[in-house]
Amino acid sequence: MIVEMTTGATPEEIDGVVQRAKSLGLNIQLNFGTDRMVVAILGSNTGQLSTDIFAVFPGVASVTRVMKPYKLASREFKAEDSLVFIDGIEIGGRRIVVMAGPCAVESEEQLMEAAKAVKESGASVLRGGAFKPRTSPFSFQGLEKAGLELLAQAKEHFGIPVITEVVDPHDVNLVAKFVDILQVGSRNMQNFALLINVGKSNSPVVLKRGFSCTITEWLTAADYLLAEGNNQVILCERGIRTFEDSTRFSLDISSIPVIKRNSHLPVIVDPSHAAGHYSLVPAIAKAAVAAGADGLLIEVHPNPKEALVDGLQSLTPSAFARLMEELRPIAKSVGRHM
Amino acid sequence: MIVEMTTGATPEEIDGVVQRAKSLGLNIQLNFGTDRMVVAILGSNTGQLSTDIFAVFPGVASVTRVMKPYKLASREFKAEDSLVFIDGIEIGGRRIVVMAGPCAVESEEQLMEAAKAVKESGASVLRGGAFKPRTSPFSFQGLEKAGLELLAQAKEHFGIPVITEVVDPHDVNLVAKFVDILQVGSRNMQNFALLINVGKSNSPVVLKRGFSCTITEWLTAADYLLAEGNNQVILCERGIRTFEDSTRFSLDISSIPVIKRNSHLPVIVDPSHAAGHYSLVPAIAKAAVAAGADGLLIEVHPNPKEALVDGLQSLTPSAFARLMEELRPIAKSVGRHM
Amino acid sequence: MIVEMTTGATPEEIDGVVQRAKSLGLNIQLNFGTDRMVVAILGSNTGQLSTDIFAVFPGVASVTRVMKPYKLASREFKAEDSLVFIDGIEIGGRRIVVMAGPCAVESEEQLMEAAKAVKESGASVLRGGAFKPRTSPFSFQGLEKAGLELLAQAKEHFGIPVITEVVDPHDVNLVAKFVDILQVGSRNMQNFALLINVGKSNSPVVLKRGFSCTITEWLTAADYLLAEGNNQVILCERGIRTFEDSTRFSLDISSIPVIKRNSHLPVIVDPSHAAGHYSLVPAIAKAAVAAGADGLLIEVHPNPKEALVDGLQSLTPSAFARLMEELRPIAKSVGRHM
Amino acid sequence: MIVEMTTGATPEEIDGVVQRAKSLGLNIQLNFGTDRMVVAILGSNTGQLSTDIFAVFPGVASVTRVMKPYKLASREFKAEDSLVFIDGIEIGGRRIVVMAGPCAVESEEQLMEAAKAVKESGASVLRGGAFKPRTSPFSFQGLEKAGLELLAQAKEHFGIPVITEVVDPHDVNLVAKFVDILQVGSRNMQNFALLINVGKSNSPVVLKRGFSCTITEWLTAADYLLAEGNNQVILCERGIRTFEDSTRFSLDISSIPVIKRNSHLPVIVDPSHAAGHYSLVPAIAKAAVAAGADGLLIEVHPNPKEALVDGLQSLTPSAFARLMEELRPIAKSVGRHM
Repeated sequence: MIVEMTTGATPEEIDGVVQRAKSLGLNIQLNFGTDRMVVAILGSNTGQLSTDIFAVFPGVASVTRVMKPYKLASREFKAEDSLVFIDGIEIGGRRIVVMAGPCAVESEEQLMEAAKAVKESGASVLRGGAFKPRTSPFSFQGLEKAGLELLAQAKEHFGIPVITEVVDPHDVNLVAKFVDILQVGSRNMQNFALLINVGKSNSPVVLKRGFSCTITEWLTAADYLLAEGNNQVILCERGIRTFEDSTRFSLDISSIPVIKRNSHLPVIVDPSHAAGHYSLVPAIAKAAVAAGADGLLIEVHPNPKEALVDGLQSLTPSAFARLMEELRPIAKSVGRHM
Repeated sequence: MIVEMTTGATPEEIDGVVQRAKSLGLNIQLNFGTDRMVVAILGSNTGQLSTDIFAVFPGVASVTRVMKPYKLASREFKAEDSLVFIDGIEIGGRRIVVMAGPCAVESEEQLMEAAKAVKESGASVLRGGAFKPRTSPFSFQGLEKAGLELLAQAKEHFGIPVITEVVDPHDVNLVAKFVDILQVGSRNMQNFALLINVGKSNSPVVLKRGFSCTITEWLTAADYLLAEGNNQVILCERGIRTFEDSTRFSLDISSIPVIKRNSHLPVIVDPSHAAGHYSLVPAIAKAAVAAGADGLLIEVHPNPKEALVDGLQSLTPSAFARLMEELRPIAKSVGRHM
Repeated sequence: MIVEMTTGATPEEIDGVVQRAKSLGLNIQLNFGTDRMVVAILGSNTGQLSTDIFAVFPGVASVTRVMKPYKLASREFKAEDSLVFIDGIEIGGRRIVVMAGPCAVESEEQLMEAAKAVKESGASVLRGGAFKPRTSPFSFQGLEKAGLELLAQAKEHFGIPVITEVVDPHDVNLVAKFVDILQVGSRNMQNFALLINVGKSNSPVVLKRGFSCTITEWLTAADYLLAEGNNQVILCERGIRTFEDSTRFSLDISSIPVIKRNSHLPVIVDPSHAAGHYSLVPAIAKAAVAAGADGLLIEVHPNPKEALVDGLQSLTPSAFARLMEELRPIAKSVGRHM
Repeated sequence: MIVEMTTGATPEEIDGVVQRAKSLGLNIQLNFGTDRMVVAILGSNTGQLSTDIFAVFPGVASVTRVMKPYKLASREFKAEDSLVFIDGIEIGGRRIVVMAGPCAVESEEQLMEAAKAVKESGASVLRGGAFKPRTSPFSFQGLEKAGLELLAQAKEHFGIPVITEVVDPHDVNLVAKFVDILQVGSRNMQNFALLINVGKSNSPVVLKRGFSCTITEWLTAADYLLAEGNNQVILCERGIRTFEDSTRFSLDISSIPVIKRNSHLPVIVDPSHAAGHYSLVPAIAKAAVAAGADGLLIEVHPNPKEALVDGLQSLTPSAFARLMEELRPIAKSVGRHM
């Protein structure tokens, strides 16, 4: 950590910082600049310390963190890429893994039709929401446990693993009994009570990026899962909130190479929630694969006009089939396959 | 809801929209524009419908919501200002209510010292965190139940009501036993499982604005509390995330008159989390009162240099006492008192 | 335009809106909703009217624009894709056009070396800044006219068209004499005095997106160029300002399919300014081509360590050559070629 | 500047950075951390250097600027508050200076009526736009030179100084002949060609904050004016672009104490453009005065319903008169007067 003193800081003020660092077991080094003193604070744990600890002292102009606040999710902690295995499917390897299905499980007929369609087109995992976090209490909240049972039924019938979102920390074990992958949604990325319970569960987990969280905060949230011993963590970029209003969110395509540089965890992309409109999904999905994403999470609905949730961003089965075909040569051109 | 068709939309396409509206029990009115057809969809519940329902139809260019998605929190639902009463203190009336204390409960000594100081300076409520949502799993997570007990002890000793944050839906009853006001933090504004349980508790609640949520989403989240029958809801503006980096968050001062226009709920302001630095807190606190806020939530620590959490944004007891004095004439100049 | 009246608006208030619309030669249609009146205002020019015109009337709750504010740049105005031709190079056709070179022209040696390298690797246009808009007045401001002369020299020597930025409305003719394409930079996207003069020049122009401007504002700025008779307009996405700080700007990859849907103008992508770091440029460039961009604008410097401006985001000639090779199969997989 | 090397950086890589610093005449100091080397680069000019200069070297993990990039606008350069004098009016002193009038000069009658009204209510300066930067080329662009003449006429008739915006670098002298204060608008904050010419003019200038520029960039833009010798610079906060859509922009109230801490320049606030709606203007204006602003810039129109530009955010003369009265006690409570 780098503590810059104000011009004219007194020796006593400098000593206040130095003594505080020593009290925390840290080493310090003083840099006599032309205008002002800079105190370098050294130690292997300084990434986890708050900059406030020193900024609060009189005579301090600013404090800059040099180490990153996340640790277990970092490439420095683990240099080689992590792979997550689900029912024989490898995520983070050469194959682009596609998870597809409806936003919400609505009925047996709807889910079975969706499952059949996405499997036939080459998806590896079936998605479907049973517990739906909705902005308004007056909107459809999901089928809950009945939805989980339908997912388990689809899994058995089509031999395809399933993913669903968990929203209550006390539902983690229940949900994990029915599905193969837990999803932590964007609004819950910093719901630490939930992260801790998911971390204890040892189920593979897709951790969606909070729509207003930095990549650093996202990787630090992943540390919550990893610190509890769950190392089956898959990140999912799904767009961030910006001023642009022609799409629901702005997909941060650059997050993919940034994650690849700074973390060992696999990262997939959800083009559907970012776009908010089916017509934009194919272009974003192609961009994600070209940028190096390890997979995609795509909303597909047998009949988007009748969808209870997010119909506008759902692909029809035939549009999804066409997209899967179009993705093949792109995957190949970046040394991957579908 | 206003559905604009594309130029050249066919009669069949227009009819698709019309039939869908009728199937939902809604009335429609057709507007023959010079270039394109506009379908107005009318009904008292259209605010709670997703625009996707119509946008997904072929021939639709755009769908605009005219009604707001929140209902119970709106001025149209309840025209007169709501008041919340806590232990004889009225929030939303002529008195500016100040809640103050440390970010986290750290020890008996720290909390008692803080409680004494803030009470002496005129604060009406003591704040202190027992369960701390922290970005990193390696940071101090709060004293948890022991913290609640210390808050109850301070309440009894100083005769001052207390507020603390609840983070797990299943802790609501536990926390409500010890404190007078539950706080839902910024990262949990859209943690709907938590909102539902807090809504069922009937404890007064401070609902902080999600740092990346619009005012509309914030009022819609309040609907979750109100829909469960809890009408003791206080809103708290605490800054939004923007590109500006000289403060931790950008306090959205305009949210105060916007809330006053659109909602009947009282609104307070937390200048400490927005500013991130104690030196900026007084100016923001004064602005909040001048803009019409009903109260303030301020971090005060007996010794910020030793604070385990957020020391940099905490006022010392003497700085807090000075601020309370400075706020008096401002409150008076907008027809309020401290 | 859709004018929603407040609940309980009086007939006189409704009539105020109606009379105003009529005074502007517009047609109106009244929609009697269950709760409130909605006035639809119809006419072919309503996209160019400010919503304020009606919002200012008493009894008005909100005004929503249905028509888009841009006109000449829209697909509705011109359905087929526009092509821009520069020295035999077609922009907006099947070939992905790459413009590459240093951020700033620094010296004859530097520019010639860069020109040779980018041409050999397959770039079609040489870029280089002569007038540099710099955040600080104490930074290098460009070689100005001497820079233009070097660009003309490189053009002649290597037979490659050149592009450079123009920053002062009164320099447009001077700059246009030396180069093939004028660039309007991100900070000048709403410098309307400059747009008008560039619009009058009839030089091909690359209009960079303002880093905080919506796509709608960007296309409306293009209308300034088109309205003056210059229809050789190329749009350039270069990243928007968001809260994310691991990259300089957040490249808005979704803007490409949005532009393709709403406008007939070609659009290229500048991955260098968005990324801010050379290591991220290849992934973003590939994503841009996969998403449907018509070209790329890439910073290449013969010796980034010595660059006076933006060295960190510049590719070396060998990294650029490698990227050009990697882009080939991606272009092919979306039906294009390099 | 602080250069952090990667873990395992080689001595040659560290030496690359050291030699580059020495070649620029800077001193360095090496800090041997537990995990990695940190190089502190010292010198009085490092604020004006780009971090890229070092970040581009192999083995460098990150570069952090310790010095601020602005210099002449900083409190460190000039400790005491700067005052700007216009026709006997002091800006930056104890009096809150109010500049008011219509967004655009529309006619002699409109301007004279506005001038009379704002002067009677206590405004010190008349505002009115002659050259209007408009998003669309099809909107009213201002009366241009005829507008300047009307402003000069109002100035003479009512004995009130006038302010107007200048948009073209080559109009600076023309505009300065007619008015007392030049305004650089938000969209032109980084129009450096314009800043340089305004800097040369020696007219007092109001520099509005770019709606997506940081406070640091704003003060660095002020350096352009100051570096040309114009030290009559007044800053104006007018709201920043965020995701919140209930107001046109989000007024960054915290910028006022931040500016007061970091700069010696006076700062005023424009509540009208931030709010976008007249009903929100009073609350924001009061907040600005309470937070320490030195003045206000407020839109007032004799008949907002007929305004050609921004009628919705304009106060009527009577609403303005009432606001001026309400501001008096707030100014007094922060030790100022109107």
